[in-house]
Amino acid sequence: MVRMAGATPVFIPLRSKPVDGKKWSSSDWTLDPQELASKFNSKTKAIILNTPHNPIGKVYTKEELQVIADLCIKYDTLCISDEVYEWLVYTGNKHLKIATFPGMWERTITIGSAGKTFSVTGWKLGWSIGPNHLIKHLQTVQQNTIYTCATPLQEALAQAFWIDIKRMDDPECYFNSLPKELEVKRDRMIHLFESLGLKPIVPDGGYFIIADVSLLDADLSDMKDSNEPYDYKFVKWMTKNKKLSAIPVSAFCNAETKLQFEKFVRFCFIKKDSTLDAAEEIIKAWTTQKC
Amino acid sequence: MVRMAGATPVFIPLRSKPVDGKKWSSSDWTLDPQELASKFNSKTKAIILNTPHNPIGKVYTKEELQVIADLCIKYDTLCISDEVYEWLVYTGNKHLKIATFPGMWERTITIGSAGKTFSVTGWKLGWSIGPNHLIKHLQTVQQNTIYTCATPLQEALAQAFWIDIKRMDDPECYFNSLPKELEVKRDRMIHLFESLGLKPIVPDGGYFIIADVSLLDADLSDMKDSNEPYDYKFVKWMTKNKKLSAIPVSAFCNAETKLQFEKFVRFCFIKKDSTLDAAEEIIKAWTTQKC
Repeated sequence: MVRMAGATPVFIPLRSKPVDGKKWSSSDWTLDPQELASKFNSKTKAIILNTPHNPIGKVYTKEELQVIADLCIKYDTLCISDEVYEWLVYTGNKHLKIATFPGMWERTITIGSAGKTFSVTGWKLGWSIGPNHLIKHLQTVQQNTIYTCATPLQEALAQAFWIDIKRMDDPECYFNSLPKELEVKRDRMIHLFESLGLKPIVPDGGYFIIADVSLLDADLSDMKDSNEPYDYKFVKWMTKNKKLSAIPVSAFCNAETKLQFEKFVRFCFIKKDSTLDAAEEIIKAWTTQKC
Repeated sequence: MVRMAGATPVFIPLRSKPVDGKKWSSSDWTLDPQELASKFNSKTKAIILNTPHNPIGKVYTKEELQVIADLCIKYDTLCISDEVYEWLVYTGNKHLKIATFPGMWERTITIGSAGKTFSVTGWKLGWSIGPNHLIKHLQTVQQNTIYTCATPLQEALAQAFWIDIKRMDDPECYFNSLPKELEVKRDRMIHLFESLGLKPIVPDGGYFIIADVSLLDADLSDMKDSNEPYDYKFVKWMTKNKKLSAIPVSAFCNAETKLQFEKFVRFCFIKKDSTLDAAEEIIKAWTTQKC
């Protein structure tokens, strides 16, 4: 998309600190402030930020966001902040909006999602929040491409917001109840992956867990496209042979970093407990069989 | 959109035969075959056809479509056929799909609309029908822009089709009952406009009537943007002063033909009878007041 808009994408990877056998957390993955600064120059039009982060589950801290905000202001750069998992943040973490940092409102477009907020991904409704001088251009594109969203679903979404905004302090409020419910599922899957030595990265937000699947026994010799990264072949093999699906993490990477991540796969844990039970059975049978 | 795709749009207007005080029908508006042929050359990539036609309500005949098909085949041109009003065709007319003409399937993309077919314009669902070698490119665009449509609405649409396709010969089938219901509304509005001398063009399809509003008394001297065509100013004035809304026909025209159509306004008659009653009252009071 960046290239189609005539711009040059510049990538910067999150890098992990060594964890020495301790629990590996999404907060161990950080941007190097020097490296980040080196990517900015007078031609930098915009930075795309994603917090909570998909696929790693990182929730950027105040200090980390301040580094980004300072660079945006210094280089007069826009910030497109993808915050679609804003409500899915687990104990000990807090989602912050970079648009609320001094000097950032007028240069930030914050993106939200009904699908992620109310667990209705098929509804295809979202929103962008920002100052008029930025949003007016999005309105022009919207008017001439999408034109409108599905109006009955928009009405339902408005009602859902209306109900939950009036009970923000109530544990029944979906913004509170959903992360609580998901945290139990996260901890359960982390425990399973850890017990099998898959070195999962504990996410602070979102509903994905990245795990190292290189320990799992998989005979990929029959996979046709041998040029594909290991994780692509692995998930295709697993879907077919184990009836378990996941997403290859290298799909999120540019050419330079693809190889670093090809042993990692993204599992989704926003599932019914019965589905997680079935996944656990499959994984346990698989690893027992191996021993 | 054509220009954004890097192409050059070439326009051809429908032209009306003289009607000498007889009822003016959308079928009096035709493409001149010589003029149409003169617009084709070896660089012509595609023609955009719209039948039933918005705003004029013309339903192209077999002979007229054959002229277009022959040119498409001769110049190896694609046909993008917007047939969203395909079911809204009135007594004595028949909608034909140009994709069914010999040699046209492999070069035609036919566009349909749930909004128009089942009167759910807010649902934002539609479809394109064509051969795999054309549709696969649309799939690429869909995958990378829209990604998915609203899935609960897709399911409802599939059910609606399932119900009505099984009862195509039943008058209760929506494909039959809707045009029947609309034809009464069309005739009623035509009668009203004729009685006031507004020279309406009787549509053979669709749910719009074009009428000449230059006879209606409207003081547009206060309208700010004096460079706007008459019909733009007229509909803004009418919406504000008469609480009746319509669409300026020159919005459908290119710069060359805009002036020819600026006395025409498009009225929509897919409305509850009580809404049409209210419109009739407004128009009658307006014209009586004038006399």
